[in-house]
Parts: sequence; C-alpha cells; structure tokens
Amino acid sequence: MQFASDNGAGVAPEILEAIAASSRVNAPAYGADDFSARAAAALSEVFETKVAAFLVATGTAANALALSALARPWEAVFCHEEAHIHDDECGAPELFTGGAKLVGVAGEAGKLTPDALRETLARFPRGLVKSPQPGALSLSQATEAGTIYRADEIADLCAIARAAGVRTHMDGARFANALVSSGRSPADLTWRAGIEALSFGATKNGALACEAVVFFDPTLAESFAYLRKRGGHTLSKGRLLGAQMEAYLKGDLWLQLAERANGAAARLSRGLSTAPGVRIAWPTQANEVFAVAPDATAAAWREAGAKFYEWTTRSLAPERAPRAGETLVRLVTSFETAPEEIERLVGLAAAPA
Amino acid sequence: MQFASDNGAGVAPEILEAIAASSRVNAPAYGADDFSARAAAALSEVFETKVAAFLVATGTAANALALSALARPWEAVFCHEEAHIHDDECGAPELFTGGAKLVGVAGEAGKLTPDALRETLARFPRGLVKSPQPGALSLSQATEAGTIYRADEIADLCAIARAAGVRTHMDGARFANALVSSGRSPADLTWRAGIEALSFGATKNGALACEAVVFFDPTLAESFAYLRKRGGHTLSKGRLLGAQMEAYLKGDLWLQLAERANGAAARLSRGLSTAPGVRIAWPTQANEVFAVAPDATAAAWREAGAKFYEWTTRSLAPERAPRAGETLVRLVTSFETAPEEIERLVGLAAAPA
Amino acid sequence: MQFASDNGAGVAPEILEAIAASSRVNAPAYGADDFSARAAAALSEVFETKVAAFLVATGTAANALALSALARPWEAVFCHEEAHIHDDECGAPELFTGGAKLVGVAGEAGKLTPDALRETLARFPRGLVKSPQPGALSLSQATEAGTIYRADEIADLCAIARAAGVRTHMDGARFANALVSSGRSPADLTWRAGIEALSFGATKNGALACEAVVFFDPTLAESFAYLRKRGGHTLSKGRLLGAQMEAYLKGDLWLQLAERANGAAARLSRGLSTAPGVRIAWPTQANEVFAVAPDATAAAWREAGAKFYEWTTRSLAPERAPRAGETLVRLVTSFETAPEEIERLVGLAAAPA
Amino acid sequence: MQFASDNGAGVAPEILEAIAASSRVNAPAYGADDFSARAAAALSEVFETKVAAFLVATGTAANALALSALARPWEAVFCHEEAHIHDDECGAPELFTGGAKLVGVAGEAGKLTPDALRETLARFPRGLVKSPQPGALSLSQATEAGTIYRADEIADLCAIARAAGVRTHMDGARFANALVSSGRSPADLTWRAGIEALSFGATKNGALACEAVVFFDPTLAESFAYLRKRGGHTLSKGRLLGAQMEAYLKGDLWLQLAERANGAAARLSRGLSTAPGVRIAWPTQANEVFAVAPDATAAAWREAGAKFYEWTTRSLAPERAPRAGETLVRLVTSFETAPEEIERLVGLAAAPA
Repeated sequence: MQFASDNGAGVAPEILEAIAASSRVNAPAYGADDFSARAAAALSEVFETKVAAFLVATGTAANALALSALARPWEAVFCHEEAHIHDDECGAPELFTGGAKLVGVAGEAGKLTPDALRETLARFPRGLVKSPQPGALSLSQATEAGTIYRADEIADLCAIARAAGVRTHMDGARFANALVSSGRSPADLTWRAGIEALSFGATKNGALACEAVVFFDPTLAESFAYLRKRGGHTLSKGRLLGAQMEAYLKGDLWLQLAERANGAAARLSRGLSTAPGVRIAWPTQANEVFAVAPDATAAAWREAGAKFYEWTTRSLAPERAPRAGETLVRLVTSFETAPEEIERLVGLAAAPA
Repeated sequence: MQFASDNGAGVAPEILEAIAASSRVNAPAYGADDFSARAAAALSEVFETKVAAFLVATGTAANALALSALARPWEAVFCHEEAHIHDDECGAPELFTGGAKLVGVAGEAGKLTPDALRETLARFPRGLVKSPQPGALSLSQATEAGTIYRADEIADLCAIARAAGVRTHMDGARFANALVSSGRSPADLTWRAGIEALSFGATKNGALACEAVVFFDPTLAESFAYLRKRGGHTLSKGRLLGAQMEAYLKGDLWLQLAERANGAAARLSRGLSTAPGVRIAWPTQANEVFAVAPDATAAAWREAGAKFYEWTTRSLAPERAPRAGETLVRLVTSFETAPEEIERLVGLAAAPA
Repeated sequence: MQFASDNGAGVAPEILEAIAASSRVNAPAYGADDFSARAAAALSEVFETKVAAFLVATGTAANALALSALARPWEAVFCHEEAHIHDDECGAPELFTGGAKLVGVAGEAGKLTPDALRETLARFPRGLVKSPQPGALSLSQATEAGTIYRADEIADLCAIARAAGVRTHMDGARFANALVSSGRSPADLTWRAGIEALSFGATKNGALACEAVVFFDPTLAESFAYLRKRGGHTLSKGRLLGAQMEAYLKGDLWLQLAERANGAAARLSRGLSTAPGVRIAWPTQANEVFAVAPDATAAAWREAGAKFYEWTTRSLAPERAPRAGETLVRLVTSFETAPEEIERLVGLAAAPA
Repeated sequence: MQFASDNGAGVAPEILEAIAASSRVNAPAYGADDFSARAAAALSEVFETKVAAFLVATGTAANALALSALARPWEAVFCHEEAHIHDDECGAPELFTGGAKLVGVAGEAGKLTPDALRETLARFPRGLVKSPQPGALSLSQATEAGTIYRADEIADLCAIARAAGVRTHMDGARFANALVSSGRSPADLTWRAGIEALSFGATKNGALACEAVVFFDPTLAESFAYLRKRGGHTLSKGRLLGAQMEAYLKGDLWLQLAERANGAAARLSRGLSTAPGVRIAWPTQANEVFAVAPDATAAAWREAGAKFYEWTTRSLAPERAPRAGETLVRLVTSFETAPEEIERLVGLAAAPA
C-alpha cells in the first residue's frame, strides 16, 4: 500500500526501454543529440505552438531555473503560501534568481484567488524603490492540495498579472494529472490562458528523472542555456532526458499514465468518503486524496504497512480541519497503484479495529 | 571514429541493467533508497575510510557544490588556469559558492606546481580585508591535458594548502582513468595525500549520469544535504543515482572500464607518435591523447568522418606548440573505443593524402 | 510641519562639529583611525560588555550585513510581516545572505508574539532537507508601528529562538527612541534579553549617516570585516563614521535627542487624541504617531503644507482600522520638531474646516 | 610625510562647508533632495551630455554596482590583472553581479593592450554555452600603476569590446587626476571614446565619502535605483552625497584639487629620479609615484616617520624590477601634500644614511 508519493513509483516500461535504447549508442553530448531534438519537437506539437523547451532532471531545477528567467533579483515572486517552490525546495528559487523574494499568498484548497492576488500586488508598488518589485506569479497545477485550476481561473489570474507587468509561471510537476482531469488541451491550460513558462513534469508520472522547462514566448528563453549550464543542470549524456521525454509523449503515453493515477485517486476518494468518520478535505481532482480520518484509522493503516504522510495545512477551512482524535492524511496514487491496494486501504477505513 | 568526448559513449551494460532493475520497484524518494545506501557503503570501502558521499547527476554539480562546502563567498579558489571549473562550467562555482573568486594559475601540461601555488598564495594575504581570502585549492585528476598528478605531487600541493589554511578539492571527473594509470590506491591519491573533498566521476567512464561528492572529513559535509537540495540536485527517484554507483563499483567494473579506455589511448598515442609530422603534446597518461598534427592529417581524419576537437591551450611549451600548418587536436577514448577505430585513425595519419 | 520622516531632519550640531574636526586631519583609511577606535570603545561601555562593533552608513546595510553573519543561504529569517527588512529594503537581506528566505509573521501593533513565533517555527522542521532551515529571528525595536518590546517580551521571544537553534537580531534603527521610552538599560533590552546582534541606528536620531552593527558575541563577528568590505560598506575615510558615533554617544547626547523626539510624539499624540474624529491607532511609545483621522483632517493638514505619509497596514485590529471617510496617517517626530509644528497640526485637527 | 594613501587626506574646506550647510536643513530622504538634483545636473554639464548619475559613498560600491548593471551572472568581466576590482574589493563585484567572473589580463604599467584584450576575448567564445560569456570590460583611469590611458587608447579598447558585444566600464576612482594629466575633456576620456559607465571618484580627491556612478547611455541605468537600494547604498540623508558632489564640481574645484595632487607627485618624481640608486618604475602621470629605492632609503624614510606602502606587482618589466637590496614603494600625493613633505622625502633619498 504505497501512498506516500508518486516519486516512489517505478518507471513506465516504454520509458525505460527508451532509456536503454539511447544508452547503447554514441551520441553528441550536452543535449545536442537526436533524442532531445525529437523531444523538443514533440513538446511544440503537444502545445500547438513553437515552444523553447529545455530538459532537466528535477522539478526543483525546472522551477527555480524557470523563475530565474522570469524574475530579477530585486523582484518578488507571488505564489500560494504552501507552494512547493516556497516550502519544499530549500531556497532553490532564491539561489537561482539571485535573491528574489517569494511572497506566499493564502488561499483555500491550495489556490490563489483574484482578490488575494490583487491585494498582494497592491503591497508592492511598481516604481517604489524601497519595495521589492512585482516580478512573477507562479501557479501550481495541480496544486499542493490536489485540486486544479480551471482554464478560466488561470486566465483571470494571468490577466491581473499581465496588467501589473508580472511574468507568469506554472509549476506543472503534476501537469498531466491536472490536464486529464480538466478535459482541456495543454494549450488551453497554459499559453492560451496567459502562462509564459511552464515546469512540465514527467518524473512523478512514470518517467525516471525528467522535467521540461517550456517557454511559450521563446524570447524569454534567450539566456536559458546559460542559466541551466551554470546551475549544473545540463546533463553530459543529455540523451537520458531526451529519450525519456520522447517516450513519455509518444502515443499519448503521458495521458494514459495520468488517467491511471487519477482513476486510482478517484476510486480511493469515493471509497473513503463513505468510511465511518472519514471526510475528504478538498475535492479529489488529480492523483492526491487528502482525508481527515480518525486516529484509529490512520493507526490501522500504518499497522498494516501502508505508506502515507500526515499533513498540516493552513489551506483548509476551520469547519473541515481535523479535530482532536483526527488526522489529516495525504494519499498519493500513481500509474502503478493497484486496485487491491485501494480496496485494502478502504477496507481498513471501514473497519479500523 | 568517435574521439570527440567520453561523454558521447554509451552506458556499460552492467550499469544499464542496474538502472532497469531499480526502475521496476517502488522505493523511497530523495535518496533514502537502498541502492543509494549500498552505493555510499561501497564508496567508503573503496576509499578505505568512512566517507560522507552524496550522489548527483552532473560533474558540474559535483564540482560546484563541493566547492560551495569548502570556500566562502569572499574567498578565492585556486586552480589551474585551464581547469574545467574555471573555463567550462559557465560560472557554476561562482553561483554555488555565492561569488567566490576562481584564480587560475599557469602550469605546464595542465598541472600546478608547488612554486606556482606558493607565489599565488602570496598574493592573497590572510587577514588583509580588501583581499579575497585564500579558501580552497582544486586539482584536476586526470588534468585537462590528459596528464596525472602523482601521489607525492598531490601531497606536496596539499601540504602547502594546509599550511595556508586552504581547503583541498579534487575534480575527479576522470578519477578512474588517473587511478588505473597511477598504480596507486584510491586512498593514496586522495585523503592520504591531503585531499578533503573529491568529485568522483562515473559518467565519462560508462555510467549514464552519476557523480559522487566524497568528503573524507565528514564534518565538512554537515550542510551538504541542504546545499544539494537548494541546487535542485537531489533527484526524487534517487535510486537512479544509487543503482548506477553501486553497479559501477561492483566487482571493480569501474577499474576495468577505465583500463579499457586508457589502453585505447595508449595504443592510439603509440601509433600516432610514429606517424609522419605528428608529435604527442603531453604524455598520454589517461584516456586523452593530445597531438600536434599536420593540417592535412587533421583534414583527412575529418573527411573520413572522425569526430574530435581542435584544441587551444596556454599549457604547452613553446617548442612543442603547433606551428603554421599544424593543428593541436584532442582525441578522447572510452571503454567503447574499438581497436578498428584506432587503427583507422593511425592509418590515416601515416598516409593522410 | 515636517512629519514625513526622521530621515528628513538635519544633523545635531555636536555631531556636525565632530565630522568637521575629523575632516581636517590626515587619518588612516578604512576604519583604522582613532575616531573609530574611540567609538567602538564607547559602544562597549554603553552596552556594559565587550562588543564587536562595525560602523556603516545606512540602516539597510546594517540590517542586511548583520543577518548575513547570522543566517546561511538556505535558512529562513523570521520577522514581523511588515518589518523594514521584509518590505522596505528592496531585497537587501536576500542579497547579502545569499538567498535566505524572509518569513513574515503577523502580529498586532507591529509585534511578534511567542505563540506566533512558535507556530511559525513549527512549519520549518530542523533537519527536513526540503525545508528552509530555521536561521534567525529579527525584532524591530521600536517597531514599524511605533510601539516597543518590553525587555521581558524580548527575553521570551529570544528564549524560543534559542531553543530552536535560531540566532537573534534586533533592528534598532530607532533603538534610542525605544530605549528612553522603556526606562531600561541598553544591555537590558539586548544581550541580557538574549539578542546576539543589533543594528544600532544613529542616522534617524541626529546623525548624518551612521549605524553600528553590534555583536554581543564577538565570535559571530569573525568574518564580518570581509562581509562589510565585499558589500562596499567599508568607508575609505572611515573617520566619518567614527566621529559621528563618538559624538553621538558622548555625554548621552543620543539619549537627549531621543527624548526630544519622543517628547514631541507624546505631545502630538495627546493633542490628537482629543481631536474630533481622530483616534490613535497604536500606543505612542517612541517617536511615531499613527492616527486614524477624518479625510477632511488629513486634507486640511496637507493643504497647510504638512508633510506626512498615509499608511496601510495589516497590523491593526479591524475595530480600530480606518472606515470609509477615514485615513490612517503616520506622523514622525525628530529631535528638531518644534512645539509650534505640533500645536499647528493639532489645531488643524481640532478644526479642520 | 603622508604618502600612504590619498584616502588619508582630509576634506576640502569648500566640500566640508557644503556638508555642513546641507545638515542644517530638513530635506527629503533617499536622494530626492535638491542638493542631489543639482549634483546630477552638474555631472551632465561636466560630461557635455545628459547622463544618468547615482551617488554612493564608496568606490567599491560604485564599481561593483556599475558592473552589476553591465554584466550578467554568467558573464566575464575583463580587467587588468592588478585592477582594484579584482584584487582589492574582497569580491564585491562578484557579490553584486551575482557571480560574474573577473578575468585578469596582464599588461605593462597597469594597462591593457589591444592585443591582450583580443587574445583574452578569443578564450570566451560567444554562444559556447559552457564558457562564461563576454560581458564587460573595465579600465582603471588612472591605473593601479599611476599611469593613464590616452583617449585614443581607450577608444581602441572600447572598439574591440563593442565589436565583441562587451559593455565598457571605467573605474575612475582617480578620474580627476587622469583628466588633468591628459589635457582632454571629461567627455573625450569617456563616452566619446566608447565608455558606457563610469565610476567617478571624489573621495580620494578631497571629498569625504562620495562617488558617482555615471551612465552615458541612460537605458543601461533603468534598474540601477533598485540595485543601489538592495545594496544598502541609498543613503537616507542623501543630501550628504549631493552636497559633496555639488561643491566638488562647482567652480572646477575638482580640477584644482587634482592639479595640486598631480603637481606634488610630479615634483616628488622629479626629485627622486635624481636620487642615488632610485629609479621611477612607471611614468608618473597622476598622483602616485612608484619608485624602486635602495632598502636603506626606504628604511630612512620609515625611520623619519614617512607613511607609504611597499609594493609588489607583476606589471613591471623584469629589467626595471627591484633587485636584492631594493624595494618598490608607492608614494601617493593628495591636494594636501605640503612642499615640505616632498622636500624632506627627496632629501632623505639623496642622503639616506
């Protein structure tokens, strides 16, 4: 019962085979290989526009490097107060941007609202020299609460940002999960809604170590090759990244993997929602289920060997927050989650004793 | 005829199989997996001492992060004037150290001499506030000229550094090649000679994307997990790195791969040394052959499809430097270099027209 | 009617004379002069302990450099959400610390509470690699709301910090104003309460351009001379700073100046508190009066040529916040504020029309 | 006999009086005062073009901030290998640029030659991702060797830089001394010769703490107000800087001060050139005399209370370098150097025993 993280899952066989194939040949170093070229072309096709795409091995690198192309050292980056870039990257955005200030904004269910963004922007007046200047907005899709932004919500936030001269970034570590949940196209959820740069994750969705930084406005990417190199994120055997991304996108593998993970989460969420004393904290919209469960249930799960995290948040309405004797848990599914794992977890919740 | 870079080679089958095996299981994220634990233990065994080892995917990350643990932002890092950290990492050491100053020191055949190091240190007086302070020494083993430092040479340089309160780092992107050439043990070439931190390369020697930062004094590594994380260099599926390093060290695979690469370079060097008009620039001591060849020879190679780099250097004595009509070339061998490739290149040199 | 800022005031005659005297002699450069030596000695005397003190020309430099000695690049600095270091220094602390993350904590009247600090610390678990690590606490004394921390309040907060392994800093840009208001000694408000480093301001209190970074634990200052130099904050004619600080402390001039400024604020606050429709936002404890006034009053002030700032804050209880037709204003007094200025402002408030 | 540094001198009476006058009034903070406005206007007049000028208190701040506006973090800054920015600012340029690499270039008498600059540029190929990219050229005027660049020499170097897409900076800590020596106009020595940004020093030439960063192309200065602020270099009582610069330029005071200092150096140089065993190392073209003197002479000077520095350099031709029994000394004059001081020093050199 592996519900700790989608990072714990293995690698999709198609992607593993692609890695192996690329490892058997001699290829130009530092991303000048054919695998990487084909991956870049596939990304432009997926997004229905000519993108400038750069592959890296980690999500933290993708986010921090993308932000370093969008925000200057004396600027502020606005994000949800529990965003991964703010809480879980040990200061990587600060390092790569040369000291930009991340400004966390509160919001229910992991999401920023237009009002909250406007109020925050008002605190950073353009041209007031003593104030960090408004630099970039970063939205997580799916969010840290396992929810997703609709295309129109993204568009509203990006419009506010654009009007304030603020660049827009999307942390799409779980972009595939958000996408298949939304029923929209990759373009709809990104550049058509106003996003300028996307961290396009693959690792959590069946790849081994592969993320793309995708710029929808290639002029923003002019210095990115240098930024990536001086970050130590240009792999010498770059075909490792190219081969993964090529296989990930080929034949819509990435969508199938995300559908599997999301489907598992949906089943788990439905199952738990009827268990005694359990309530689902936020709508299950991607591959993460957040549930408030009786302590006894959580204990029974753990005793049975289930892996998952207890969670704390400021993003949950007081009336839904855990009370004494309750625990908020995060349960993450992946393309590998087996129906039996879900059934067993739900079963234990139905009868924890 | 692939002599452009050992980064172009494929991956050793044993390592590829290990990657595949690790990709089929669910494993804890961020390096808490068993593969990584076994790799760390193997490194301690190889170096005959308890080391603190951290795996990363690129050599630039290994070097820049290692230096950031050794040198402070207002300090100077001394290295050969053509060192990889100085010329070929797009400022990564400056980024990760927070602005330390790399000071290039001239030296024949890619090597620092005790006298040059002493003279350089004298220009950075300890305690003179306006002067960058002496921070770290970084030696490349093998060097950028394909030569190696003997254990006693390392010891002499490290002793000078230690007396000046300067930390010591070795860029071992080609450590395996230097090691098998030296006939000494890993411990002899590193901590027994005074080295405190080593970038231990595997990628150029048959791995896919794997380097270790090895601290022989674990107290120097106390903050390294944070440094690596905020650099975006902590892989979520960390078993990718652990599995490679485990397989690389197992059964002395790494030494066998390096012997193959070095053997190919030695054969190539011998063959070229008798070709008309060709002279070997520096002793061939690892897996790189630097040769001054008639322009016609270089042209013939290129015409025949050989891949290699023309080279410029300030590290070659004037009497051995290329004259009009000559080109300095770098020819790199790998564990995959075939005898036929060597024979053909030598044959073309013997009769370029 | 100059109530915009204590930075607008002139320079106390005693300090100006000291500058002039020091400008007429030849003196060693970079702070090795006698004026600086005497200033350092005077600071140790004032604080009743041997301090390591460093003079700089701006408060931003003092704060950012002090924090760079206390917090490492991957650490978090906790401060009030409206602290000067967070909102008004354009990212200087981020620059000098190499990217530390400033974490703003909410609190009434510009002050942190023990509970809020504890809750915040709980979000940054020591040893959790992905999380910015707890690094430093910074308290503003007087606060941005013109209030002051009592010695026991400081002690409580510092005790929490110390227990969490967190360094403690005080932004004392208006330390003198807080001090004379508190009735305690400089030592009581700082090191005896657990403060390790203090930005000791003089510029706002009658100096021209002079602040001291005071370390109560000199071992924390070991690298500070380098930090200051590479920040460009070591004045070549350092006697400018030494002479100011010497004169500032001599004969308790600094206390007299602060008493004058505080006295003016107290009179202003008392006067306004009886004006129709005006309410004092927070207790007037130093040299700043924050008042909610009818728009008509603010307009009358402005028309009469008064200089002051309209203010926005999240630090004011809803029931005291400005309603429609009201404005929150900040009125700052200095040692130069004339009784007539106060009378006139109060008079206008009494009868704005 | 004060020959240690022009930083040791006092302040010109006209400048001191201006400081005092500005200290007696209430003035807007942070450089919005009239003194600063008039200083900016005067700089535009002096340079015969509309400049964007920013005042700071130290030369290190001026240089490092100027470079941070010209060079990006992954770029290289080319300068003489003994330039102040490279050797004497404790890494300030690296801090403010976010890690740009300073590349020292050798050259006789403290000066870069076109050939040396071309050869250096060739080592940093534009577009080669692994290589630090060519970013900025910085020339010192006067140089660290007390020599000056002629206008045509500056133009030649700037033309090479411009052709390579490299920005141009001049470290004019002693610009006034170079200017009066050259017989050319401020415009001729700067923007007409291709310089884009100038650190315009006043402190060493009779001011107290004042330098200007002057941009001849104001578009390069668009972010400079933020760079200065986050560097902690925006003085709250900014009139201190404005008043100094206004007085410095008024009635050509700055030229008169520099002529006095240069004249003193010329007399000293002439006097020493006839002393037994003394030879002038480099032509005396500004306010610094570098002389190789018998050890006995240096000892006699020191015994008589003279203040000066022994010097080491790599910028001196071997045949002119000190031999056994000789010392290279630096003797700096200022506007305050008295004829008697010069006579006495020369006299001691004539008869050291």
